[in-house]
Amino acid sequence: MATNLPHADRFAARHIGPSKTDVQNMIESLELQSLSELIEKTIPESILNDQPLDVPDAAPEHVVIYDLRTIGRRNKIFRSYIGMGYHDTITPRAILRAILENPSWYTQYTPYQAEISQGRLEALLNYQTAVIDLTGMEIANASLLDEGTAAAEAMMMFSRMAPKRRTFLVSKNCHPQTIAIVKARSHPLDIELVVTDPDSFDFNDEVFGALVQYPGSDGVIEDYESLCAKAHQCGAHVAVAADLLSLALIRAPGEFGADAVIGNSQRFGVPLGYGGPHAAFFATKNVFRRQVPGRMIGVTVDIEGKPALRMALQMREQHIKRARATSNICTAQVLLAVMAGAYAVYHGSDGIKNIALSVHMWTLTLAKGLFKYGYRLRHDDFFDTICIENPPLDVRERAESKGINLRYLSDGSICISLNETTTKSDVNRLLSLFIPDQSSATSLIKSIPATYQGILPRDTPYLTHPIFNQYRSETGLMRYLHRLSSRDLSLTTSMIPLGSCTMKLNAAAQLAAVSWADYNGLHPFIPIDQAMGYQEIFRHLEKWLAELTGFRAVSLQPNSGASGEYAGLLVIRAYFASKGESHRNVCFVPDSAHGTNPASAVMAGMKVVVIKTLENGDIDQVDLEKKLVQHQDHLAALMITYPTTYGVFEEQIRELCDTIHHYDGQVYMDGANMNAQVGLCKPGDFGADVCHLNLHKTFAIPHGGGGPGVGPICVADHLAPFLPGHPVIPTGGERGIGPVAAAPYGSASILLISWAYIALLGSNGLRRCSEIAILNANYLAHRLSKHFDILFRGRNGYVAHEFIIDLRPLKKSADIDAVDIAKRLMDYGFHAPTMSWPVAGTMMIEPTESESKAELDRFCDAMISIRNEIREIEDGVQDRTCNLLKNAPHTVELVCNDSFDLPYSRTRAAFPAPWTRDHKFWPTVRRIDEAYGDRNLLCTCPPIEDYQS
Amino acid sequence: MATNLPHADRFAARHIGPSKTDVQNMIESLELQSLSELIEKTIPESILNDQPLDVPDAAPEHVVIYDLRTIGRRNKIFRSYIGMGYHDTITPRAILRAILENPSWYTQYTPYQAEISQGRLEALLNYQTAVIDLTGMEIANASLLDEGTAAAEAMMMFSRMAPKRRTFLVSKNCHPQTIAIVKARSHPLDIELVVTDPDSFDFNDEVFGALVQYPGSDGVIEDYESLCAKAHQCGAHVAVAADLLSLALIRAPGEFGADAVIGNSQRFGVPLGYGGPHAAFFATKNVFRRQVPGRMIGVTVDIEGKPALRMALQMREQHIKRARATSNICTAQVLLAVMAGAYAVYHGSDGIKNIALSVHMWTLTLAKGLFKYGYRLRHDDFFDTICIENPPLDVRERAESKGINLRYLSDGSICISLNETTTKSDVNRLLSLFIPDQSSATSLIKSIPATYQGILPRDTPYLTHPIFNQYRSETGLMRYLHRLSSRDLSLTTSMIPLGSCTMKLNAAAQLAAVSWADYNGLHPFIPIDQAMGYQEIFRHLEKWLAELTGFRAVSLQPNSGASGEYAGLLVIRAYFASKGESHRNVCFVPDSAHGTNPASAVMAGMKVVVIKTLENGDIDQVDLEKKLVQHQDHLAALMITYPTTYGVFEEQIRELCDTIHHYDGQVYMDGANMNAQVGLCKPGDFGADVCHLNLHKTFAIPHGGGGPGVGPICVADHLAPFLPGHPVIPTGGERGIGPVAAAPYGSASILLISWAYIALLGSNGLRRCSEIAILNANYLAHRLSKHFDILFRGRNGYVAHEFIIDLRPLKKSADIDAVDIAKRLMDYGFHAPTMSWPVAGTMMIEPTESESKAELDRFCDAMISIRNEIREIEDGVQDRTCNLLKNAPHTVELVCNDSFDLPYSRTRAAFPAPWTRDHKFWPTVRRIDEAYGDRNLLCTCPPIEDYQS
Repeated sequence: MATNLPHADRFAARHIGPSKTDVQNMIESLELQSLSELIEKTIPESILNDQPLDVPDAAPEHVVIYDLRTIGRRNKIFRSYIGMGYHDTITPRAILRAILENPSWYTQYTPYQAEISQGRLEALLNYQTAVIDLTGMEIANASLLDEGTAAAEAMMMFSRMAPKRRTFLVSKNCHPQTIAIVKARSHPLDIELVVTDPDSFDFNDEVFGALVQYPGSDGVIEDYESLCAKAHQCGAHVAVAADLLSLALIRAPGEFGADAVIGNSQRFGVPLGYGGPHAAFFATKNVFRRQVPGRMIGVTVDIEGKPALRMALQMREQHIKRARATSNICTAQVLLAVMAGAYAVYHGSDGIKNIALSVHMWTLTLAKGLFKYGYRLRHDDFFDTICIENPPLDVRERAESKGINLRYLSDGSICISLNETTTKSDVNRLLSLFIPDQSSATSLIKSIPATYQGILPRDTPYLTHPIFNQYRSETGLMRYLHRLSSRDLSLTTSMIPLGSCTMKLNAAAQLAAVSWADYNGLHPFIPIDQAMGYQEIFRHLEKWLAELTGFRAVSLQPNSGASGEYAGLLVIRAYFASKGESHRNVCFVPDSAHGTNPASAVMAGMKVVVIKTLENGDIDQVDLEKKLVQHQDHLAALMITYPTTYGVFEEQIRELCDTIHHYDGQVYMDGANMNAQVGLCKPGDFGADVCHLNLHKTFAIPHGGGGPGVGPICVADHLAPFLPGHPVIPTGGERGIGPVAAAPYGSASILLISWAYIALLGSNGLRRCSEIAILNANYLAHRLSKHFDILFRGRNGYVAHEFIIDLRPLKKSADIDAVDIAKRLMDYGFHAPTMSWPVAGTMMIEPTESESKAELDRFCDAMISIRNEIREIEDGVQDRTCNLLKNAPHTVELVCNDSFDLPYSRTRAAFPAPWTRDHKFWPTVRRIDEAYGDRNLLCTCPPIEDYQS
Repeated sequence: MATNLPHADRFAARHIGPSKTDVQNMIESLELQSLSELIEKTIPESILNDQPLDVPDAAPEHVVIYDLRTIGRRNKIFRSYIGMGYHDTITPRAILRAILENPSWYTQYTPYQAEISQGRLEALLNYQTAVIDLTGMEIANASLLDEGTAAAEAMMMFSRMAPKRRTFLVSKNCHPQTIAIVKARSHPLDIELVVTDPDSFDFNDEVFGALVQYPGSDGVIEDYESLCAKAHQCGAHVAVAADLLSLALIRAPGEFGADAVIGNSQRFGVPLGYGGPHAAFFATKNVFRRQVPGRMIGVTVDIEGKPALRMALQMREQHIKRARATSNICTAQVLLAVMAGAYAVYHGSDGIKNIALSVHMWTLTLAKGLFKYGYRLRHDDFFDTICIENPPLDVRERAESKGINLRYLSDGSICISLNETTTKSDVNRLLSLFIPDQSSATSLIKSIPATYQGILPRDTPYLTHPIFNQYRSETGLMRYLHRLSSRDLSLTTSMIPLGSCTMKLNAAAQLAAVSWADYNGLHPFIPIDQAMGYQEIFRHLEKWLAELTGFRAVSLQPNSGASGEYAGLLVIRAYFASKGESHRNVCFVPDSAHGTNPASAVMAGMKVVVIKTLENGDIDQVDLEKKLVQHQDHLAALMITYPTTYGVFEEQIRELCDTIHHYDGQVYMDGANMNAQVGLCKPGDFGADVCHLNLHKTFAIPHGGGGPGVGPICVADHLAPFLPGHPVIPTGGERGIGPVAAAPYGSASILLISWAYIALLGSNGLRRCSEIAILNANYLAHRLSKHFDILFRGRNGYVAHEFIIDLRPLKKSADIDAVDIAKRLMDYGFHAPTMSWPVAGTMMIEPTESESKAELDRFCDAMISIRNEIREIEDGVQDRTCNLLKNAPHTVELVCNDSFDLPYSRTRAAFPAPWTRDHKFWPTVRRIDEAYGDRNLLCTCPPIEDYQS
């Protein structure tokens, strides 16, 4: 644009909360002259970058939308019958609009604060119930990242249960990407993988478990009952990778002895999206409940005994168990699990069965047609996938000319997987590929029985809970989903000031393309020339992320930050191995690190050595030196977060990196706090070797209530050859580690969001975001410092983009815990900051750049008002055990009740701040009894009577 | 699909609320054998249609979406610089997603029940304030259908104020469609229209008013101050059709003496949509407040004195004044006004000014470039539109080959209107059309001043209220819009059982395409070959609607039911005129008719003769015969609603039509109740000659909180030649009446919704909808009949798709009015049915087919519970003046208040039914004081202090 034109609309001004006047006022209240003064006093001069970034200039919203549309049209939408765990599906438009396109759903945070998360918790409980019903298992979690990593998690779970055994058997008829992931995962854990035919599984006393695919990757349905029995006899466990839709017709793995059932729920209405995001499921037996990876929703009660939901068995999680964690998983695929659960609610058992039956009948029709013209199938027992032996050599050419993708096996056979969208004309077109001028589906289908008559028919019911039979009309579903979303506090209600989680704006323009058919309809394993639109997005995004972090190469594959950590550490290990230094396996992790850091290191087969931090959060140089000397021969890497998890730009970061390099170690940077760095400094410049990014934090992918996430890794030149590869679609470095995700580009469709974020902001906008994130945090800290102790600050007294307030004194003075303040904040309409991490008894607050000064002030007002309420306890005006905080949150039922015998007024309980009279967010349950639910684990929809009582 | 396949998902089952079991149960409770028995006993045998409809078979949702996408790609998206009241605009994605794609906004009903409509009322108040500020007027309404009809309404308003004068002056530099509409409207009202240059306006004592365009249709800015003065001197009034964006830079019409300012607010962020829907505005002086057409939002107080909003001055409306009404307008363009208002809120005064300035600067750049190369412009005083005299003859060809549309005047001149989306490269491309190989925008723009330096500069502020300066970030806007929507009860909350308004499901799949660029980005006056996708949709829809109604031809142009009525009556008049029977001008209207009927007849220049109805709602044959004899020479038409407005299928409808035809009259059928007829009987078959449809009732276009609507007319063979035409894009019959809407196909973009509705349901589905609508109504009537009197029933005791309950006895027994029940229903979470129409002291209830039995039962439970509450009054248990009903609705503030001194408990007030504890919708204000607001009319955002007090 010409420079003298007034700019009507720049996205940066929409993304950034404070107005110019607000910024000026905040700077003044910090007694500074300018924003740059703040930045210079906060970020060490030695790392501050003042060069413009080599990313495109900011483009206006409508231009970015236009560009996305243009690029999207470079993707070719073929009919894909590739299968392998990904199938075309029909996303009911009501679900698309109500969930995937609705910020009240996608801007939710992970449901740690259960009282204001009952909507999504119920949605996830529905998902778990559907999984449990269909798999025939006893418990299920609320999703994992993808089928491949879920299989690996099953292996790890079984391994933990028989720690002395080292062999894991894998059917060679598993999906190739699953085998590759499991293989990659087994290596650092010293697990011996035997990939073979299930018939030749040798269950000896070295074997702790086995994995089979059901139906097989080539479609065959085999009976694994005796296999399970054999495994159990030898003390091993069996994981079944199952197709969820097939289980509507064939026997549930739980009925033939499976110990864990995993798989992808994508075909329950979640768009293909060129590979993701989708929710994988993980179901198992109740006895393994404390070993289950990921999060599980359970039913409990609130303090009034009313049924309430929350994440169960949190004690398993990596943020608590650290190096002893069973898995490094944090992010799940909540939003997609919510969608898949809604799909089950909308269709119900009859609907799901009919869908499965239609798919099966068309598959039978296709098989019959091929058979009639002399083709031989590899197997006759199938659900939706057939495998044609010795097909004509020109089928592929013919198929691609007609816009059809099949699965071409290396032995020349062809697999075809049908799906919910398949119609008669599709089957005719498929037949005509093999039998030119032949289209006989119409006559063939007539002889196909309208019930399942194949092997292993299912005779047990599923989706019998009323929830799956109540919302059959779109009106009903719409109201149900609306009601659920209204129970959850999301960014549409107020700020969510979670330290380390960066709950910034997820702009509508960034989200738009995610639900467009041009991006949604692509199978991840199509030939690359059909995905040129996506490839262009990837090339841009890789280049931009490398530029922002100061690195050379990027892998977009990891589906979460933790997955990125794991990938990054494996890359480091591969690098050392290439130099003949495989013995380097020690990973230094500061005691202030995210819990995922040690957990990831363990998964990468490393030995964790904890480095002490000083009181201010900086690395304890003395301890570091000591441990360096001690471990110098085995040092692989230091994992470090920057700015530190204490919210401070450590001054000596460059020197620290130099020191590690001096000892031939690598520096792994946890990118969780990258939101304070973008445009201001670059990890690659000041010494990191690899860094993961949380696109769902810094780069505007919404949290979705606990996923999806994306955790790309950016690496220096020498590590680029080791970036993760993929067995089906070549990608990554030339000597790449195995895949860390099932799809070659991970959660491809949501990469569009980060692409759009960068395109909309440009170099100046990105830098400005970081600056304002730091300003907002410092303004908040400044206002709150008069009422709470701020724990850590940088050399000039400034914090980075987040900070910690110390609540421990209140425990002594008023018996108030951090959790009491968290719950009381709900009465004010706020989500609590991060609780008791990285320091117990504190809160970590991160406002992000998207929150306006007015919202920051409102939050301060709430915190200060709560501090005054605590003072009343300290002063003896309020009771120490029964007060506004201990009883929080207050529900409308409590406050409107005819009798109200609490020692304070109703209005103080309900309307503690003026804005609550204008717009009040009501928690729907009172404080939740966590322990009750863990003692009485129930992770399916409870009998309806429970609610009625 | 093959017939033996289980059908996983049919849309009819999603659209229709009751399940098969529900249907069976309802039939049994009515003591019937089958649904067909109910239909046969409800609809006269003489008209019942048992033939399948000639519409396509039902297609699944994803197929319809695919088809819409395919058809959409047949539209060509050129860059259009045609202007004429329509301009490309940037709809902020946050507004698109939060409003246009959000059922919580678009499924709202007209805000008659103000206590549960405060969100959209505030949004509309913002719109009015923006209009008032920019036009410089004192009051504004909450939108009209389009600029052309708004101009006609201004003419009618001025005419009413000087009833003896008959001349209206119109500038020939108004948009041609505006002139054509005003001309068509003037004719039946015996107004003489003089279209000429404003300089030659002759204000004599026959002239009651004048209309000028500002800036002119060719872009010229002229000073109308002396014109206004001259008009006022002679006692005439001046209407200014203004471009809202231009008013950010040039003098406000209110400042130079305009009496009314009208125009299109489309370019405030509302997509072009090939002509609509958009919100027209109407601003005028306070002294004319009782003459203003359409609805106006005003500030008042609730019974506690808290500020509250509601529709002001309802006494003006046609449903009250009937034949004495000042206009037949009901439906406005609420959803679009809400969007335009949000655009003003988001941009604020600086933003709007910058947009206007950018547009102007590019226009100056273009003008300068053309001037430099020797082109002559018709005028030098412009905002965004220039007119090039004697351009090269090949410009059009060159432009179209480059995907550019300009406005080609009949004298060979070319007009170019720039807009918010115009960029430097656009200007370069435009220059190159006239000066090949020339692109000089970059150098030219440098000399363009960055302030407005043209004539009539504006020196008064606008959009100064804090609301326009508060939500500048997307986060802020998102929360604000979310908060507003949460104050309104929409279909996302519960059923809205409005008789005659048919609040059925508006399915997400039907709405999807409305926000796609392929449909959104088309200017209504582009060459027809660029809109082949739309034309295909229109052809289908016309054919299908004709088939469903039994008629021959359809006009999609009318933008509302009332506009359809007016068009239909004009068609009848034109038909008679063609036969030399212009004297036929009497319109029979039953006294039970919708208030629009007589109002439309008057607007069509007809004499209304009221026909009595019997107690059961049927036409009084005796009275009819008497009036037929009396008026036989002048009879033009009978207007009749079917089923009647009393909710009954009148038995003698066929005979009635025959009788009218016997007297050479025409039968006009009001299609408001078509939802009971589709697939069951056809007006064209049993004797109607013309019928309008409310696509926003029967055919699933959402109500949008009071618009948009679409009111196509379907006509018999002999009337087809007279269907409305258009001066710019030829359409309609060969002897068509003038246009009734500004765009040739009215609100083109939302016709996609009705197209998809029919495509999704197919013949069987459509019929089933009508059957279930009738079943649901009869089931509700049956359950309620034990507690309330049902006023009218058909011969076998069944009602049609709606029914009336009599509440008058409760007035006597308990001092309870219908309004008390309406307000108490809010406490139960329901929107009231239609109040006191067509019979005072009653409620008319229409459940529609989309509501499930569970929801019907919930509504019945609420009504019965309220009846029991009334019984307590009757029994003297509750006070007659201070009770649960008189005090309703109860707000959360009231119920949570520390003191609660009402003579019943808090929980009875707040939680009168079990579901209210599970999901409670809280009204945000208490009962509204209507009279206070009318006495103290304030229709702009009130000073912020008012809220703080």
